[in-house]
Amino acid sequence: MGDDTVKYLLPENRIPRAWYNVMADLPEPMAPVLHPGTGRPVGPDDLAPLFPMACIAQEMATEREIEIPEPVREIYKQWRPSPLYRARRLEKALDTPARIYYKYEGVSPSGSHKPNTAVAQAFYNKEEGVKRLTTETGAGQWGSSLAFAGHIFGLEVDVYMVKVSYVQKPYRRALMETYGARCVPSPSTETAAGRAILEADPDSNGALGIAISEAVEMAAQRDDTRYSLGSVLNHVLLHQTVTGLEALEQMDMAGDQPDVVIGCAGGGSNFAGLASPFVGRKIAGQMSPRIVAVEPAACPTLTRGRFAYDFGDTAHLTPLVKMHTLGASFMPPGFHAGGLRYHGMGPIVSHLLHLGLIEAVSHHQLGCFEAGVLFARAEGIVPAPESTHAVKETVDEALRCKAEGRSRAILFNLSGHGHFDMQAYTDFFDGRLQDRDYDQTALDRSLAALPDVAAAE
Amino acid sequence: MGDDTVKYLLPENRIPRAWYNVMADLPEPMAPVLHPGTGRPVGPDDLAPLFPMACIAQEMATEREIEIPEPVREIYKQWRPSPLYRARRLEKALDTPARIYYKYEGVSPSGSHKPNTAVAQAFYNKEEGVKRLTTETGAGQWGSSLAFAGHIFGLEVDVYMVKVSYVQKPYRRALMETYGARCVPSPSTETAAGRAILEADPDSNGALGIAISEAVEMAAQRDDTRYSLGSVLNHVLLHQTVTGLEALEQMDMAGDQPDVVIGCAGGGSNFAGLASPFVGRKIAGQMSPRIVAVEPAACPTLTRGRFAYDFGDTAHLTPLVKMHTLGASFMPPGFHAGGLRYHGMGPIVSHLLHLGLIEAVSHHQLGCFEAGVLFARAEGIVPAPESTHAVKETVDEALRCKAEGRSRAILFNLSGHGHFDMQAYTDFFDGRLQDRDYDQTALDRSLAALPDVAAAE
Repeated sequence: MGDDTVKYLLPENRIPRAWYNVMADLPEPMAPVLHPGTGRPVGPDDLAPLFPMACIAQEMATEREIEIPEPVREIYKQWRPSPLYRARRLEKALDTPARIYYKYEGVSPSGSHKPNTAVAQAFYNKEEGVKRLTTETGAGQWGSSLAFAGHIFGLEVDVYMVKVSYVQKPYRRALMETYGARCVPSPSTETAAGRAILEADPDSNGALGIAISEAVEMAAQRDDTRYSLGSVLNHVLLHQTVTGLEALEQMDMAGDQPDVVIGCAGGGSNFAGLASPFVGRKIAGQMSPRIVAVEPAACPTLTRGRFAYDFGDTAHLTPLVKMHTLGASFMPPGFHAGGLRYHGMGPIVSHLLHLGLIEAVSHHQLGCFEAGVLFARAEGIVPAPESTHAVKETVDEALRCKAEGRSRAILFNLSGHGHFDMQAYTDFFDGRLQDRDYDQTALDRSLAALPDVAAAE
Repeated sequence: MGDDTVKYLLPENRIPRAWYNVMADLPEPMAPVLHPGTGRPVGPDDLAPLFPMACIAQEMATEREIEIPEPVREIYKQWRPSPLYRARRLEKALDTPARIYYKYEGVSPSGSHKPNTAVAQAFYNKEEGVKRLTTETGAGQWGSSLAFAGHIFGLEVDVYMVKVSYVQKPYRRALMETYGARCVPSPSTETAAGRAILEADPDSNGALGIAISEAVEMAAQRDDTRYSLGSVLNHVLLHQTVTGLEALEQMDMAGDQPDVVIGCAGGGSNFAGLASPFVGRKIAGQMSPRIVAVEPAACPTLTRGRFAYDFGDTAHLTPLVKMHTLGASFMPPGFHAGGLRYHGMGPIVSHLLHLGLIEAVSHHQLGCFEAGVLFARAEGIVPAPESTHAVKETVDEALRCKAEGRSRAILFNLSGHGHFDMQAYTDFFDGRLQDRDYDQTALDRSLAALPDVAAAE
């Protein structure tokens, strides 16, 4: 490998054969998921109406390595292993001694890391005789990924898309339809949850929590239908570890090791996908990188939320999970990174922060878009609005290296491209974007309304 | 290499070191380019106000191999070598014995093959002290590619964008602005050519020929400014041969040889880029593939045009080149592949057709979009509307293989993705697209108006 390599590529036979389950290595076990009615830990049967048994088993698995089924690896070959880039032109543009690497997940069919789990979930559902999947989508990355994966395995896919995104992102919807999925603006009249919201507010713009309620309700109603979630849950984060496992090998190819690992975090899946294998090495004492989750200042789950039991959705249909949360009724102000607007955070990511194995920071959107444009002009790739949060923290870290006159290796997850989000860049250029803060009073209120789960706390 | 490989990847050090110049191997030389005033063959000095001398030399070069400058190869590393895919799931979906391969150029920063020449042209201009580049763009692929390449080399870029596309494709414009270019709807009031059109028709939607006139006029006016063209010319097609040269090596990796090579053709650059190295092998008697250019039935330059001298632009500012043409005043009916709406065809492609070394077919857009959706559902990648023409011919060829019970290897150029063209897919799904034919009377008229170039014909 020459000194001036830009892309570190692995052949298809180096797609990992197993996902890495960080739960096997945690110094302190995670809190159990609780049944909302009984307050007792849920068992597989409680989750069976929603998820295939294979995913439920993974949700609670304690083995370190979980085999990736061959048919899933076969589909992964369409875009995996994804490239690891050395950002040589960005380094030059910043005039930094830092060595910047990024794992690029935008090479997938739908343009983000989401198909890593969509393909696995579609496969397990197909294996267990499921005919139809329901899900929600905000920005649209997840919905289009499940649409793609569902079609591959011959499953029908119904996507409840947050109404404001449905209207603002017609091309995301077009992508889902190109893959053969049905896309429904949420709140809809198809579900009791949707009808209740519409009765209270016929002009509701929708929210991810509402769309989740709708998708869960539809899945629970039919025997041949299951629900599919694109982030937050343990099995979802597990499927994303292909990115970190490949990156470990690619950093070896580069003859380097990261001093800092960075990812943006909404529900936590692209962050945990890249970070978990490095967390594992950290726990094992094999390396000691700082590992940083970056979230929007307008929806600061890790930096301003509470580590507590909460519902995953607005209608309180899901089990209770212990996570960093702003409260299920929290509504962030408008900003252009739909994938980072969720009120909660994956329990694994929350637990890792609680244990001090990772850190969290937040950034406002204007700085993130500035960093995104800087990145695009240097590296060519236009980052998704979500991914610009990781770019921003990376640029800041590289400038700190410059100020300190020290070289550090920075690795970040460029979780997706912004091709379907160019309206955000247009708004940025036209001066229509502002940095908006969350409403502290509303946050206090939604935190005060957290469910009382005395027994388990 | 396993039997079930999907992506044939080359390392960065296998980026070709030289472009392949098919002009060196032609059994019959091409007709000279003529000065519009004198009717005599143009010399380098005639073209110097428009192009850098390095490109002018390539326009007339007779060497078989032309070295790729190291700084250009360095930028190519950002996405090259591009992958060669075996379309295994498309083969299954078609239940065909055909072996289908595609070279995927959508991995470039702007999502198409265009940066292959944009980077080279920006480099040569920079080397010769140019400060600013002007160009035109229709669908937007070319404009965004030159915007990217110009920024890399510190050049200002002014893009005259056909007005109808400027309005219909705001996200292409956003991409150009992200890369730092200025994007002007054409016809504009900035040029005499634009003002003349607007006087005659204030509501003009614009056309590629008009935008070319504007960009050429602006470049000719200033010493520090040159014009950059994204297709048609010999040096542009030359730069694209990296795709075919890589594909030759990748087909070797696959242990296969194409029986049919397919590309869509507007000005001819992605087609010639893939095809030329195979044409060279064919002339040398080393292989004998059928080589097929696919054009839209609504703008059928190769299949219905005349092989004659014509202007490249509407305002007759360019030199005269011998090419297949529908006449510089020909206006195709509306259809959704802006990159294939040009009235002429690259002289090299025209000459190859004239010599019988390649074939040409045309397809209507509905069939192309059907094939594009079929492809997207099987392979995940949504093709650009232009590229669906190559997909359509590939699907037809694969079905012919099936009908004949014969396996053939088909190689096509998937010249770009459709992420910035989803409106076309939306229109297709919503039933708003029709198959429209060109107006035969208008074609007869524009052909009758071809310039009289008796001396050279």
